[in-house]
Amino acid sequence: MINEEVIYSEIKDVIKSIGALDKQAMENAQNRVDILTKPPGSLGRLEELAVQLAGINGALFPSNTAKRVVVMAADHGVTAEGISAFPAEVTAQMVANFHAGGAAVNVLARQVGAEIEVVDIGVKVENNLPGVKRVRIKNGTDNFRWGKAMSRLEALKAIRAGITCAEEAVADGVKILATGEMGIGNTTASSAVTAVLTGYDPSLVVGRGTGLNDEQLGHKITVVRESLNFHKPDARDIISVLSQVGGLEIAALTGLIVGAASKKIPVVIDGFISSTAALAAVKLNDRVWHYLIPSHLSAESGHALLMDYLNLKPYFNMGMRLGEGTGAVLALHLVEAASRITTEMATFEDAQVSRSEKEESVGRKVKGEE
Amino acid sequence: MINEEVIYSEIKDVIKSIGALDKQAMENAQNRVDILTKPPGSLGRLEELAVQLAGINGALFPSNTAKRVVVMAADHGVTAEGISAFPAEVTAQMVANFHAGGAAVNVLARQVGAEIEVVDIGVKVENNLPGVKRVRIKNGTDNFRWGKAMSRLEALKAIRAGITCAEEAVADGVKILATGEMGIGNTTASSAVTAVLTGYDPSLVVGRGTGLNDEQLGHKITVVRESLNFHKPDARDIISVLSQVGGLEIAALTGLIVGAASKKIPVVIDGFISSTAALAAVKLNDRVWHYLIPSHLSAESGHALLMDYLNLKPYFNMGMRLGEGTGAVLALHLVEAASRITTEMATFEDAQVSRSEKEESVGRKVKGEE
Repeated sequence: MINEEVIYSEIKDVIKSIGALDKQAMENAQNRVDILTKPPGSLGRLEELAVQLAGINGALFPSNTAKRVVVMAADHGVTAEGISAFPAEVTAQMVANFHAGGAAVNVLARQVGAEIEVVDIGVKVENNLPGVKRVRIKNGTDNFRWGKAMSRLEALKAIRAGITCAEEAVADGVKILATGEMGIGNTTASSAVTAVLTGYDPSLVVGRGTGLNDEQLGHKITVVRESLNFHKPDARDIISVLSQVGGLEIAALTGLIVGAASKKIPVVIDGFISSTAALAAVKLNDRVWHYLIPSHLSAESGHALLMDYLNLKPYFNMGMRLGEGTGAVLALHLVEAASRITTEMATFEDAQVSRSEKEESVGRKVKGEE
Repeated sequence: MINEEVIYSEIKDVIKSIGALDKQAMENAQNRVDILTKPPGSLGRLEELAVQLAGINGALFPSNTAKRVVVMAADHGVTAEGISAFPAEVTAQMVANFHAGGAAVNVLARQVGAEIEVVDIGVKVENNLPGVKRVRIKNGTDNFRWGKAMSRLEALKAIRAGITCAEEAVADGVKILATGEMGIGNTTASSAVTAVLTGYDPSLVVGRGTGLNDEQLGHKITVVRESLNFHKPDARDIISVLSQVGGLEIAALTGLIVGAASKKIPVVIDGFISSTAALAAVKLNDRVWHYLIPSHLSAESGHALLMDYLNLKPYFNMGMRLGEGTGAVLALHLVEAASRITTEMATFEDAQVSRSEKEESVGRKVKGEE
């Protein structure tokens, strides 16, 4: 129990350390965005993203900076209930595929120049692949239909491991993180956690995952509903919720997101599972929200509702539902674009381009007021 | 008149030469996509894009290939009606900014490794910037409120110039084009062309451009409505519509898009003005549609309706409304992602990953049938 208290205390310190964004840096970034050679606001959310990034970073966000996607992999005991189209051994096989560089996230990370860190946070089948970070808290969760997915200590350890990954990334010079995951059965765990933390009925947040038919979807909803009836989780106790019906990768991503926010670096959120972790992180400290960068709207049906709950607007909708961090890694191109806009575009003055009459008068007014 | 007939005949030949996509290449691409290590369909529209690209290219689309954004710049006589927040001289100033590399499209093109070709297709103010392609058909269009924007010959010349740009790109080894434009007043011309070719009321397709207030927006709608009443354009005669109420850059982009399709290379469509040119190109030959790759949903209000009319679903929505090709260039990252997926990802067999039961049975069924 001492161990549990020590870890919990450490995590609480990290959570408390999360600060607000740098308002001055945001104002400076907005001022710069407004004098670039384009009609005001015409780059839309790319401008807002540039300002957010500056607020996180304390200055204009650098371009061509070090990016890392952390892929947390773990197994789920709830697969025993028949809630996935894929057999559980696929988790370990895909870890080997990440290691070999053949998975979608490898391809997309290479494209954008992001490093991949693959973390075995609790894969059922032992593997000793070089280059896979081995932080096995447990050989997959237990089946949460009939008991806790993991102990409170294990949940805390997984969160702590995620925080450590963020801290190590920052120590390595990484300036932006992206979340990824692999775990057969993890949409079921994510749906359960999301249902508890949002209060939405399981039928609204359970989706088809890797490809269930209507009957299988109905069964998955039933499994989540009965599991919640069994545990009667307390939505205010985030760590208990994660231990009761969560997953090791979900807890670890929660830690990664909290860790990124505490270290003042942005974290790009992938699809449904990653967003569930973001939800848990925001519930731990709502300041986390400012460090989150949405990516895509997943085709997993609960994702739209979850993003809406989180008040995050995905940047693109490609009908993707693969996970691994694929959507988050694609969004890194947009982050790069936003930072390049602020650092590389000419100003009206540089380029001797005439401004609109409205802008000129606004410019004069502001100058007059200073 | 002989000149006009000759050019028209040449353009008609190009239009007629546009072929269908390569069905076998698409089937091969789909088969490959289906054996990659991911649940079937889980990369959503990225998979569809990969298949479309293969159909255009006749084989899997290459990654790291030569990309070019063509920025057509021209002025609009209709600015005399006070329909833009920016003065007309900005067109020439922005051409200089493109030349100097300081505009948004320069920054975003550099990011994705695309070349920029800036074409002066009819800027009012003379410029002799090295590196700007000088194909001045006319020193800006005439004010279409009280007469034709340009003659039929000038419209044909602008279309022909766009086709030539596509042909030259292909000769230079370019494998994908993106459309861009600059022209103060060109949302007004685009709205007029779109209203005629779709049959929608001007109030539905006229937007705020670079930033009009409600009163100015009402005036812009009136100008378009009165111009259409003046010309009474025949929606079946695309070239006449372009000459009556179009713009030199709109006609040139129409040619560029037609030229890309005739040369069997994909063309990524930017926002409202580029989509208007795509609409004209599709009306010239509906086979053009298969070569179009949408990019973003512009904040310019008519764009959503126009994309819907064209049955094109934008990949992302960033609230952008700058033009220049900025949205199209951002979408090149998605094209690159789609091609890399098909060329770099491991198959289930390569990676020794287990498939879902459903897939295995599908696989067996197909094999049995062959």
